[in-house]
Amino acid sequence: MPKKIASPASGFSHLDAQGRAQMVDVSAKPDSARLAIAEGRVTCAPATIRLLRASALPKGDVLTVAKIAGISAAKATSTLIPLCHPLALTSVGVDFEVEADGIVIRATARITGKTGVEMEALTAVSVAALTIYDMCKAVDKGMSIGGIRVVQKLKS
Amino acid sequence: MPKKIASPASGFSHLDAQGRAQMVDVSAKPDSARLAIAEGRVTCAPATIRLLRASALPKGDVLTVAKIAGISAAKATSTLIPLCHPLALTSVGVDFEVEADGIVIRATARITGKTGVEMEALTAVSVAALTIYDMCKAVDKGMSIGGIRVVQKLKS
Amino acid sequence: MPKKIASPASGFSHLDAQGRAQMVDVSAKPDSARLAIAEGRVTCAPATIRLLRASALPKGDVLTVAKIAGISAAKATSTLIPLCHPLALTSVGVDFEVEADGIVIRATARITGKTGVEMEALTAVSVAALTIYDMCKAVDKGMSIGGIRVVQKLKS
Amino acid sequence: MPKKIASPASGFSHLDAQGRAQMVDVSAKPDSARLAIAEGRVTCAPATIRLLRASALPKGDVLTVAKIAGISAAKATSTLIPLCHPLALTSVGVDFEVEADGIVIRATARITGKTGVEMEALTAVSVAALTIYDMCKAVDKGMSIGGIRVVQKLKS
Amino acid sequence: MPKKIASPASGFSHLDAQGRAQMVDVSAKPDSARLAIAEGRVTCAPATIRLLRASALPKGDVLTVAKIAGISAAKATSTLIPLCHPLALTSVGVDFEVEADGIVIRATARITGKTGVEMEALTAVSVAALTIYDMCKAVDKGMSIGGIRVVQKLKS
Amino acid sequence: MPKKIASPASGFSHLDAQGRAQMVDVSAKPDSARLAIAEGRVTCAPATIRLLRASALPKGDVLTVAKIAGISAAKATSTLIPLCHPLALTSVGVDFEVEADGIVIRATARITGKTGVEMEALTAVSVAALTIYDMCKAVDKGMSIGGIRVVQKLKS
Repeated sequence: MPKKIASPASGFSHLDAQGRAQMVDVSAKPDSARLAIAEGRVTCAPATIRLLRASALPKGDVLTVAKIAGISAAKATSTLIPLCHPLALTSVGVDFEVEADGIVIRATARITGKTGVEMEALTAVSVAALTIYDMCKAVDKGMSIGGIRVVQKLKS
Repeated sequence: MPKKIASPASGFSHLDAQGRAQMVDVSAKPDSARLAIAEGRVTCAPATIRLLRASALPKGDVLTVAKIAGISAAKATSTLIPLCHPLALTSVGVDFEVEADGIVIRATARITGKTGVEMEALTAVSVAALTIYDMCKAVDKGMSIGGIRVVQKLKS
Repeated sequence: MPKKIASPASGFSHLDAQGRAQMVDVSAKPDSARLAIAEGRVTCAPATIRLLRASALPKGDVLTVAKIAGISAAKATSTLIPLCHPLALTSVGVDFEVEADGIVIRATARITGKTGVEMEALTAVSVAALTIYDMCKAVDKGMSIGGIRVVQKLKS
Repeated sequence: MPKKIASPASGFSHLDAQGRAQMVDVSAKPDSARLAIAEGRVTCAPATIRLLRASALPKGDVLTVAKIAGISAAKATSTLIPLCHPLALTSVGVDFEVEADGIVIRATARITGKTGVEMEALTAVSVAALTIYDMCKAVDKGMSIGGIRVVQKLKS
Repeated sequence: MPKKIASPASGFSHLDAQGRAQMVDVSAKPDSARLAIAEGRVTCAPATIRLLRASALPKGDVLTVAKIAGISAAKATSTLIPLCHPLALTSVGVDFEVEADGIVIRATARITGKTGVEMEALTAVSVAALTIYDMCKAVDKGMSIGGIRVVQKLKS
Repeated sequence: MPKKIASPASGFSHLDAQGRAQMVDVSAKPDSARLAIAEGRVTCAPATIRLLRASALPKGDVLTVAKIAGISAAKATSTLIPLCHPLALTSVGVDFEVEADGIVIRATARITGKTGVEMEALTAVSVAALTIYDMCKAVDKGMSIGGIRVVQKLKS
């Protein structure tokens, strides 16, 4: 079978020697157990958090809806991000920490596969954050989403 | 036809009187011309930007791939965010400003419809940011995504 | 513009004169306010309901996850059922009634459009039921889903 | 690599120790050959079956459309049911038995993987049933869908 | 509301003044009744057609599966083609003509909307052709797909 | 585990003994390294190519958008073509050759799996071609897409 020889431009694995976008060829990589954890935060007014604590958080719906949206998005990562590989994730978890003026989101993705899952964890965080934003936007016009980053990545 | 009478909990339009998640019923709203603009930023090392300028930006592929991912994500908003309505967007635009240590993303969504399109603009920004992250992660492990917010919303 | 003249086989709107499947042409239909309500039931062991009441229902997660799955499925109806039209639903609601040996699911779909929304309501019920089944199958191998039907359909 | 230690609430694998929804972590499970068979039934008026036999069943379109919808839905199970894992199914089959007042649907799903495929078989049955309902609803307003259950599950 | 003033590069509506890809802004366009018809052809060995006529065409399954795939693809056009608008198609039809050494596919798409539907008709033809190819590839390694083009486009 | 014994009709692997469509059961096949290359061509007026060379090709956007659409479509093959298996592609590449009166598209798909990937390569070519068509249709009403075929298929 012919080898695909790509000399990536300046270290960008997603660009070929001509600087053109490409999907990384992971055909020759072995399957490894992989884990990635990502974080992000929805920042809102303290009044919004107080309102959530009074009415919505007791029922849990806001965070459960955001969790489900995050998990579903992680599974859809390769349809959202053009150069991501389709992956059979073995686990996705999304958890929340409610603070005085915001909600921290943490997502964990796992797989036994040929490529890392940090994009899946980041996508889960991003869409969970957007979902919280959507559910709170009627009471708070000044929210923002930030601090989205990978906090841990393991391969074994 | 029976009216759905929802007395939202404490002003959260996406929660019913019991604090349970619900999709807002927009059946009775008139169609209006609507526009929303959102922004966000991928923050990276200055060296990453220099590398992009040297190898990838001349060809344009990195930003074009991110733009296409953002536009496609805007169209998929209602499949990603559980309580969003399916909308027939009439326009989505995604633009970039490359700075010394990051890339600013701005997305515009338009519709003539019964509900606003800020979630569509925010989703375009978020997924464009994730796509840039994906393409640069091989050369920069310390990137983060932030400042995602609505900067303009109009109805006429 | 040429008219598509279809003389459906024996009253089946989804079959042409030759008995071949077809999507109904609704181009000439006016937009109407439409509503459909569907119901269904997951039948399980009374012990499963007692276990749910003790551990899962207080947090609400099982029913919230099922609700979100049902709402999302209603929005995806035209991608699941081949001859359904893509519709911009204005509202989808999913509610539950927990009984001694099962959970009744009721879904409501609304639109202002050219075609009815009973398939959207039925799809919401079906996928909400499958989601409850999925979450309870570890403790109950004998569940079944039934009674899925339209209970109300209005046009005005 | 850190282990995810989940003590599920009262045996519900999809709920963590706090009763919160979670995707089961199947990372440590071995790949096994798995099969699941599910069944369900669309119940309709005998006149509807007679009409189908006279006009639609000879061409086969109604059942073929339902079969294709069921197979496609099985492949989409993890996008429909929030806590299902994405799976690379190796086979999906959907068959029908036409009775005097209804149509029995039987679906078989197979995989070599870390988790069972009963949700895929149940989803195939459910969406095939909805598709039959959709194609017959113009001639029969009283149909219902029921008896959806797993009839066989194997691992080897 | 601010107008988006785009002076397209050299008449390409999908490129802005800088030659960058853009989704056309159709916000200001009126709704019109629109129709597009597209055609294409799968060319195969005469023996393949004879085999189809003997075994598969009597049951109709090959062409019905291809028809359903084409209709579903037309509905998914805006998720496949990045700069297409999401559209609420009112009708999609796919028909076939079996010739001695190939199968001609004709698809019709209709809408009342702000933009034409030729991409929807072309996508239906393309995916129906791919589906025929898929089902016949075990018996014919030399097939090709061609002649995909718009044969009629109307606005009224 | 019961074996599924299918005696395909006349060699069509996708038809059972009764001539009914079926997904091929690949459960018993071993994983192999597989590659497929497909080609196709958008034929247009020489003036269109000259215009592209003058305005769009220098920026690269037209071909990058088409490449991304092709890669994304390859990943979505099993959702588009009813009897295709879901596959975890390890690589998809799409390249172009601009000629005087057309653009040749070549796509390569790779996997380590139980079934070939020619449908994924053909789908990438088809959707990349449709995307080029979409972006050029404002300046050229006479384009066509053809010559879509497999040019290489390997298993090792």
